Amino acid sequence: MAKYDEKLQELKTRLLEVGDLTHINALLGWDQATYMPSGGAEARGRQSALLAQMTQEKFIDKEIGNLLDDLQPYADSLPYDSDDASLIRVTRVQYERDLKVPPKFIGELNEHGARSYQAWSEARPANDFNKVRDNLEKTLDLSRQLAEYYPGYENIADPLIDFADYGMKASSVRKLFADLREQLVPIVRAITSQPPTDNSVLLKHYPEAEQLAFGAEVVKQLGYDFSRGRIDKTHHPFMTKFSLGDVRITTRVKEDDFGDCLFSNMHEAGHAMYEQGIDMSYEGLPLGGGTSSGVHESQSRLWENIVGRSRGFWEYMYPTVQARFPEQLKGVSLDAFYAAINKVENSLIRTDSDEVTYNLHVMLRFDFELQLLEGSLAIRDLPEAWHERFEHDFGIVPPDDKDGVLQDVHWYADVIGGSFQGYTLGNILSAQFYNAALKAHPSIPDEMKQGKFSTLHGWLRENIYRHGSKFTAPEIIERASGSALTIEPYINYLKTKYGALYKL
Amino acid sequence: MAKYDEKLQELKTRLLEVGDLTHINALLGWDQATYMPSGGAEARGRQSALLAQMTQEKFIDKEIGNLLDDLQPYADSLPYDSDDASLIRVTRVQYERDLKVPPKFIGELNEHGARSYQAWSEARPANDFNKVRDNLEKTLDLSRQLAEYYPGYENIADPLIDFADYGMKASSVRKLFADLREQLVPIVRAITSQPPTDNSVLLKHYPEAEQLAFGAEVVKQLGYDFSRGRIDKTHHPFMTKFSLGDVRITTRVKEDDFGDCLFSNMHEAGHAMYEQGIDMSYEGLPLGGGTSSGVHESQSRLWENIVGRSRGFWEYMYPTVQARFPEQLKGVSLDAFYAAINKVENSLIRTDSDEVTYNLHVMLRFDFELQLLEGSLAIRDLPEAWHERFEHDFGIVPPDDKDGVLQDVHWYADVIGGSFQGYTLGNILSAQFYNAALKAHPSIPDEMKQGKFSTLHGWLRENIYRHGSKFTAPEIIERASGSALTIEPYINYLKTKYGALYKL
Repeated sequence: MAKYDEKLQELKTRLLEVGDLTHINALLGWDQATYMPSGGAEARGRQSALLAQMTQEKFIDKEIGNLLDDLQPYADSLPYDSDDASLIRVTRVQYERDLKVPPKFIGELNEHGARSYQAWSEARPANDFNKVRDNLEKTLDLSRQLAEYYPGYENIADPLIDFADYGMKASSVRKLFADLREQLVPIVRAITSQPPTDNSVLLKHYPEAEQLAFGAEVVKQLGYDFSRGRIDKTHHPFMTKFSLGDVRITTRVKEDDFGDCLFSNMHEAGHAMYEQGIDMSYEGLPLGGGTSSGVHESQSRLWENIVGRSRGFWEYMYPTVQARFPEQLKGVSLDAFYAAINKVENSLIRTDSDEVTYNLHVMLRFDFELQLLEGSLAIRDLPEAWHERFEHDFGIVPPDDKDGVLQDVHWYADVIGGSFQGYTLGNILSAQFYNAALKAHPSIPDEMKQGKFSTLHGWLRENIYRHGSKFTAPEIIERASGSALTIEPYINYLKTKYGALYKL
Repeated sequence: MAKYDEKLQELKTRLLEVGDLTHINALLGWDQATYMPSGGAEARGRQSALLAQMTQEKFIDKEIGNLLDDLQPYADSLPYDSDDASLIRVTRVQYERDLKVPPKFIGELNEHGARSYQAWSEARPANDFNKVRDNLEKTLDLSRQLAEYYPGYENIADPLIDFADYGMKASSVRKLFADLREQLVPIVRAITSQPPTDNSVLLKHYPEAEQLAFGAEVVKQLGYDFSRGRIDKTHHPFMTKFSLGDVRITTRVKEDDFGDCLFSNMHEAGHAMYEQGIDMSYEGLPLGGGTSSGVHESQSRLWENIVGRSRGFWEYMYPTVQARFPEQLKGVSLDAFYAAINKVENSLIRTDSDEVTYNLHVMLRFDFELQLLEGSLAIRDLPEAWHERFEHDFGIVPPDDKDGVLQDVHWYADVIGGSFQGYTLGNILSAQFYNAALKAHPSIPDEMKQGKFSTLHGWLRENIYRHGSKFTAPEIIERASGSALTIEPYINYLKTKYGALYKL
């Protein structure tokens, strides 16, 4: 309707500025993690905080609230899933949420995050928790403060969980995780009571340059678009976005571990393909990003595991990898290689862990987040608590903090709370979405054996990616899979795959 | 004085925000030139423009003007060269200058610059001037518009020249260049009438990785601080700064030309050492950058040529480079190498040209800038004009536009006007400053032969670098060298060095 045109344009112009500033800040973070010399850290923290504060000020400007009010009748006149109605609806949710937090606080949070990240990137190699302890204390304070801007919660973690996974809260995640745990633990026990799989073939020497080249080749074939992205090295791999035309991933390489770089690439490329698949007309607007942490993670895990650790994928890819690493893979059968990349074992590092035990790593962190926020666990006791819980859940004692409480960047760069549940939600959803894709296109597994990923990619783009944040996680789950979130497909997937591998 | 403390603090806080936003925008530019995928270009241009406009708005805020007015009595009560008086004085000059230009125009200029740079980076390898012609027409329009915000000039280029080299204008540069040309041309003629120097040793195959490693090693020894900087590859090398703790340079490599990467590194490291040497308390403030284009260039040229192309430097460095490239430099004497890196010849590329003919390249561009701005030359006629003038000045016809009018990034990323005179001012000043350093420390040439650059570096830091923009170019020239800008030391330097090399 013409009378709303001008106001809608004005709203979009303002929102695009907010989006652009957010993306500029992401570039600052990417540079800090990839190439920035240490001397740049202090100014970078200050610059990032300034930008975060200016972004927040621009977003919660009263005029945006007025425009949303003025445009509400227009939104109400449109179908729920029209782009304009969705923009107004989704923006309002974010606007009302962000309005509760003072821009100065966002700046402070951001500056602290940059400082804390810098400390962590030195503390981890030095295996020195004390180097981050004060920062972490402050992170916990700030995380609580952030939650307090949303009074009326059931659990103090709820607002933080809701930011990442709209519609979830501590109690619902706890329930879900308890159900999952009940099914998982017997599978883990049944597998780990068997003799360990021999994965020594993966632990030979694989030169860095070759790993990087192969890792890039693989994600290119999956559908990651290098004309709108690139790969660089960081301590901790991640995906980041500076526009829909520039969605980057990072990776790391261990020369004595073939899986690290490769599967990390497929994981991050999954995130990136989601972002690259978003409708270009949403560029820089609140609709122009993935809809939730769990749905995002479903895509990284789908490409990393359901595709990347499947036998079908390696039927296609194994000759290539054998040709590239002829010494290392000489005489190693496809079955042996497939078993090695799917070895289930109790291990130290979440990101390196297998599909089955992975969720136990997540649950441990999720529970710690709740305990820290609730005040039943103090930061100073965290390393010790980690050791104890780890031994309880995995039967091994972490030899140090480097591969214990210091292993994940999350608490050292962002808030404590809401950071981890998305990983397990993602695992659950990866199977649920893949099942739906299979139902629509039963040919997908056969195509994968021939190195064709376009049907699967196309289904995901059509049913999930292109919508960006137009629909909430519960909505997109329902629309794409025909039901609400359910653990059944994931449990079936694990039981089928690992039942066969371990003859359970 | 206590009663000014609060206002001074408020001024500094605001100026630091302006400085931080400026530096953030520099990071956007660096990323675009180094790593950004092509898909990121459109959004990057928009983001850079937004940031430039917001920066300008923050700087010309009325409150900054009020603070400057309120603080003027305080500044007047202090010695001219005190930090606070200088901050207020220098900020006022910039403030009054920037107040004349609408932030929207700055945003437009910036967005156009990013778009134009992207077009150039495709047009140059394709040798296709038509790909940039429309952009360049607009650049010329915008450049004229920018000048028009400063009415009352003698020549339309004057405001643009004054931005880069405070105190200079078209007429004074013309006079200076005419004087210099009168002295230079006979030297060039005397040299080029001799048989050409054999520099084939530089044109052997030098592998990229080895060149990059050696180039980094050299600038580290000169004093470039890698904990506050780094080197990456770009089409066109440059220096950029994101804070006083993060001053980066870029380079390029030709495997069949040993000099390109190495001398470009020394050149950019000269710029970077200037910035790294600025008093840390000026961080992010108007005092915290080099004072003018000419003084900046004096440092790049001093380290590249007066040091890097001196016989003394290579007495020290030649054994190292011979050890690193034993095949290529086998049986090549120091004298032959020294002659090769100082070969004077009429050549196509400004940045690769020798010290003697370099200034003729600059004068050509300077004259074209004036003609374009004055309207006596049209963009469409520029390639042809370039060919004609080039043949006249150098006796050779450029075989294409790639190595003709498309060779320098300047007009394709910034305005036309004021972009080039600084290079020759820098050459002139490099000798003037070096002479002053020698007068204070006659041991410098001997130290250089032993690979010690700290006395020279220390003198430059003490007399030039640390001051940042506290003094104008004319002031710093007078203070550091004891006289106003003069071409005598430079002419003497060239006559002595090339007189010996070519037995004139």
